[in-house]
Formats: sequence, C-alpha cells, structure tokens
Amino acid sequence: MDRRSFITKAGVVGVGAAAAGFAAPAIAQGNITWRMVTTWPKNFPGLGVGAQRLADRITAASGGRLTIQVYSAGELVPPLQSLDAVIDGTAEMSHGAAYYWQNKSPALSFFTGVPYGMTSRELAAWVRYMGGQEIWDEIYDQFGVQGFLSGDTGTQAGGWFKNELTGLDSVKGLRFRTPGLGGRVWEKLGVTVTNLAAGEIFQALQSGTLDAAEFVGPYNDLALGFYQVAKNYYLPSFVEPGLATELVVDKKKYQALPADLQALIRDASQAEYDQVASDFYANDPRALQTLVNDHGVKVHQFPDDILKAGAEAAKEVMSELHQSSDPLVKKTADSFIEALNILRTRTEGTDGSFIQARKNFFSI
Amino acid sequence: MDRRSFITKAGVVGVGAAAAGFAAPAIAQGNITWRMVTTWPKNFPGLGVGAQRLADRITAASGGRLTIQVYSAGELVPPLQSLDAVIDGTAEMSHGAAYYWQNKSPALSFFTGVPYGMTSRELAAWVRYMGGQEIWDEIYDQFGVQGFLSGDTGTQAGGWFKNELTGLDSVKGLRFRTPGLGGRVWEKLGVTVTNLAAGEIFQALQSGTLDAAEFVGPYNDLALGFYQVAKNYYLPSFVEPGLATELVVDKKKYQALPADLQALIRDASQAEYDQVASDFYANDPRALQTLVNDHGVKVHQFPDDILKAGAEAAKEVMSELHQSSDPLVKKTADSFIEALNILRTRTEGTDGSFIQARKNFFSI
Repeated sequence: MDRRSFITKAGVVGVGAAAAGFAAPAIAQGNITWRMVTTWPKNFPGLGVGAQRLADRITAASGGRLTIQVYSAGELVPPLQSLDAVIDGTAEMSHGAAYYWQNKSPALSFFTGVPYGMTSRELAAWVRYMGGQEIWDEIYDQFGVQGFLSGDTGTQAGGWFKNELTGLDSVKGLRFRTPGLGGRVWEKLGVTVTNLAAGEIFQALQSGTLDAAEFVGPYNDLALGFYQVAKNYYLPSFVEPGLATELVVDKKKYQALPADLQALIRDASQAEYDQVASDFYANDPRALQTLVNDHGVKVHQFPDDILKAGAEAAKEVMSELHQSSDPLVKKTADSFIEALNILRTRTEGTDGSFIQARKNFFSI
Repeated sequence: MDRRSFITKAGVVGVGAAAAGFAAPAIAQGNITWRMVTTWPKNFPGLGVGAQRLADRITAASGGRLTIQVYSAGELVPPLQSLDAVIDGTAEMSHGAAYYWQNKSPALSFFTGVPYGMTSRELAAWVRYMGGQEIWDEIYDQFGVQGFLSGDTGTQAGGWFKNELTGLDSVKGLRFRTPGLGGRVWEKLGVTVTNLAAGEIFQALQSGTLDAAEFVGPYNDLALGFYQVAKNYYLPSFVEPGLATELVVDKKKYQALPADLQALIRDASQAEYDQVASDFYANDPRALQTLVNDHGVKVHQFPDDILKAGAEAAKEVMSELHQSSDPLVKKTADSFIEALNILRTRTEGTDGSFIQARKNFFSI
C-alpha cells in the first residue's frame, strides 16, 4: 500500500477553507489542546480510525489536560505536508507512516516496512530492544520531532490480478498499480508499475488501463470493490510484510510537557500498535470470507519463481539503501539487516513452524 | 511453561515476614497507593520484569496519583493466592496468568493459551474484536475482578530432550516435565508427565529422574542451564503457541477510580502486551544463538508423527472443555473455536506463507 497519491488528491480539496476555521492551540484552565494532522482520510478503516482512537486515548487518559483534535487528510494541511506541519508549528502531532518522508531521509522506509523485511513483531522488537528507536530518534532529531510506533497492518495482500499468474514470465509487461519500494521490486521483475490514487484504481482496472493493482489487504480492499473487476487475489504480499504507522510529536513541545503526559503519550501509542494490528487480524479474514463466499474471488499464492525473483530484487533494493553515501541511512540499514537476521531465526524457526504444523495437522 | 510449582515453593519463604512490614493502602494528598501482587519471582525475565514495568508505567503516567507497589511471588501472599488476594482485598491488583485459576473456571485457560490454540496476535484479535473480552468479563464478574491482557511470550519452545526423538514411538514412557493442559496432551501420547518446580528440573535431568523437560523458551531456559544436561532442544512447542499474562484489578475499586486513571490502566496494560512480546521476540533468538554457538545445543523440530498425534490429543483436550456442563465454559470454548477458525485463515494464509517465502528465498 501507499496512500501518497490517494491522499494527495484528497488533500487538495478544502484545505484553505478548513484551516481558516481553527483557532490557535488553546491553553485554558491548565488544559492544553493539541492538533494532530493525519495522512489518512477520515474514518479510513484500520489506520484513520486508529489515529482518532489514539487521540481519544490521550485525551481520556489525561482527563482532558491534553486534548487532541484530529484533522484528517486535507482538513488542515495536505496529507503529505503532515510532517512539515509539525516542523513548522502548524500542528503539534502528525499520524502517518514514516516512509511518506523518504525525501527527508530514505532511512525512514525501514520504520514503516520494506520488501521482504520485518513483520510487525520483528519491527517492534528491533525498535524497542535492538537499537531501532535510538537510530530513529537520531534521524528525527534533525527535524526537531519525536516518533513513536502507533499501529501496524500486519502482512498485506499481494494484489488483484485480472488473469491468473502462471509464473514469472506472466508478469512481464503487466500494468500493475503498486507504489513505493514494492513498486521498485516489481519493476525489476519486468512489470510496468504505475501509481494511481486509490480512488482511480477501480476504473483503471475496469477500463483495461491496469491489469493488476494492490492496495492494503482484504479489510480495506473489500470496500473499494476491486473484486468486481479482478477476481484473482494473491496472498501474501512479499513487498509489504507489515506497514507500521507512526505518531510524530514536536520534540521541544513534547519535552516541555509534564512527565506524566509524556508517559501517557508513549503508552497510548504503544497500546495502539497492538490495537491496530488486532483490528486487521480480526477483520482481514472476515473480509476475505466475504470476498470468497459472496463475490467469487479466487485466492492464490504467488508462484515460487515470482517469490524467488522478488527476493533477489528486494535484496537489491535493500542493498542500495545499505550502500548509501548518507551515513545515517547506512547506519539504519546496518542495524535493520543485523536485527532482521537475528529476529528471523525465531520467527521462521518457532512461529512459522508452529503455524505450519497447525495448518498441516490441527482442525476442530 | 507453568510456573505453579516453581512459584509455590518460592512463595513459602518469608510470606509472614514480608507481609508484616506493609501498611494499608495509603490515600494522602489525593494520591492513592495500590498493591500489585504477582505470580512471578522478582526480576523473572520477560514476565516478572513486565509486571514491575507495568506498575511503573501506571505510576508514571498518573504522575504518582496512582502509585503501584509490586510484591513478587511470596512477598505478600503465596503466588497462587494472587487472585484470592485481590478478591479478599489484601491487594488491589494481581499480575499473573489466567490459567493459574483453572480451579475457579476451566474457561480461564483460553485467556492464557491452549495446545494448538492461538498465537499472541490471534488472542488479542479475539479478545479485542471478537467477543473474547466480554466473555472474560462475564467469568471474572463472578469474582468481582476485571482482567486485562498484559503480555505474551509468543510461541514457546517444545522442550529439552536427552536423546534425539526418532518418532512417536520414541516418546512412549519418557519422563517429561511439562505441566498443565500441555502435559495432558503429552500424556495422551504415552509420555509419563511430571510437574517439578523449575528449580528442581536441572537436578532431575542430571540424575536421570527426568528424560526431558520444558519450561518457557531460550530467553528463560538459558538462565536455568538445562543445556548442560540435555543437548536436544525442540522448537516450537505445539502445546504453547503463546502464553498471555493478565493484569487483574478489583472491579469495584477500578470503577471507583476517576475515568482518566481507568483509561491509563487499560492503555498501560495494552502497551505491555506489546512490550513483553517485543522482549521475547528480541531476546529469545539471541539466547538461542548463545545456546547453539557456545553450548553445543542441537535444535530440532518434532517429527511429523508427534506433531500429528499431538494435534489429535489437543483436539480432545479442547473438545472436553467445549463439552463442559458449565455453560460459561462451553460459551468460552464456542467463541474461542469459532474465532480461531476465522483467525487462522489469515495467520496461515498470509503471515505463515510470507514467513515461509522469506525463509525459502530471501537472504541478505
């Protein structure tokens, strides 16, 4: 998934009008009101809902001493200016995904997710116990902001294809909507990658401008109706093993808060990291049931030669980041790759093996 | 893992002496001090550390308005009386695992983990989005307490075996330390199950009283030195796909708290659900590296015929709970099994398949 183009379009509408209506952050009776801008459309399942819930948690746990007002994509600033809005003081908080700010540092992709990279559990382990947060802080210190993990979609879907894939040859020349680093991986496999806005995907599939498209997973994809124009759904994605969201806070303002408010922002963000994942884990499979049972969708796994070529391409993409001339990008890649190689031994040897055993042998 | 016998022994020491030293919960200058009793030894990696950290989070996020004092296993009450201590008002909070209270309701096992049951992500999805919390509340309402998920070990290790297993026949008659519902599964496979305290396992393996033992996973097991007397380490466990910890709070006292303190207890517990899992995911594989590289441990997976027979036995154990004459146990099993059968389609079809693809094709 990459909502950049989606939210850019959405964001163009009504920015000035919306922004004009809001007063400066209020400090009344010892209470503070902060603005949270987000990169998500209002009520966007899983992620936009998570931003609002995080704001509500902070407001509730602080007894209103720190009240968070949420502005969805475009309400206060265009979504892809959310981080800049915090940097320039228009808002105190931004809720989005770190890889939207790759132009500030390519290292930020690692804190959202990269092709064949970390699962949501692995990412949290790296960030919380293996030096990830410290490097992230070093990157964001350049911009005067503090980042916190605040959600994760879990492993996403690989995409909707009009025709069944027979192997690596069958993807050559396919016109596939798949943005970001994932798109770069698919390009290396001979795919013609395009990056349409979410709202344009359906029609492009219908008209034949696109042969395939990926967005998030069953929970979000069901709502967009792709099943009406492409029946082959490939699971899992190998380019998005997870997508972590972030809460970004103006660092000086954060550090000027009383220690209890700092603590509850941190705790609420971490609670949301679990809550958003739970939302996707509960609702993806129910949506997939609907897609298969009610809409005749056929679920496939990518053929092995695609998975294998994808792995080679993902390695190239990760290695390019690793060879960056920017020492902080190189440092991030070093830390990420070292952690991934440790963490995967548990995920593959323990979790993956249990899941496989249960799949093979257990039914009730 | 089951720490019941371990902590029972630990708990016998010094209960009276410790308890005598503590004053009644203080309410001074509007601040409240609450007691948290735990089932864990002090500084027990992952779990005991998590109980202390949860207490510290609540104290910090409340600015000391709600200060939590932690009493490790046996300091205030014996560990297996932790829930009773909350029920009888000796403490306001207990940190442990719901399956320790199976004698109050066998349904409580489902909120910790059952053989071939839910992973940590699946359990949270069930509890938070598929009716699990509501049923848990119904069970605990009988005792006047409120439960919150507060941590998870992730999938555990299967155990230490002196001799390599060649198949199902090779486990018949083995003297294996493995407690709880997992032990009942292994018994059905012909194993002679014993439930020694953790502190006794090492010597029993050394003297030949035991042929095998399981405890938690590499992070905890390394510290206990089992590798010195049994070199064959089996991963993963199929009887403990996860072990969730719980925070239990006196419900009337909880509901009498200001809404902001209620919210921050809930958020801090959920943050810990993520933090404890991150701790295990980061530290299990590092401990396993040490076991393999420095101590000559051989890592194996259980042979397929053991995994298969274990699945049949686990189904029997789960079905016995499902056929309970206690309507609340039956209701819990119904809800759990229905949720598991939905959730596993995502875990196995998406997460498991990604993990397998990465294992097969990606290296860096």
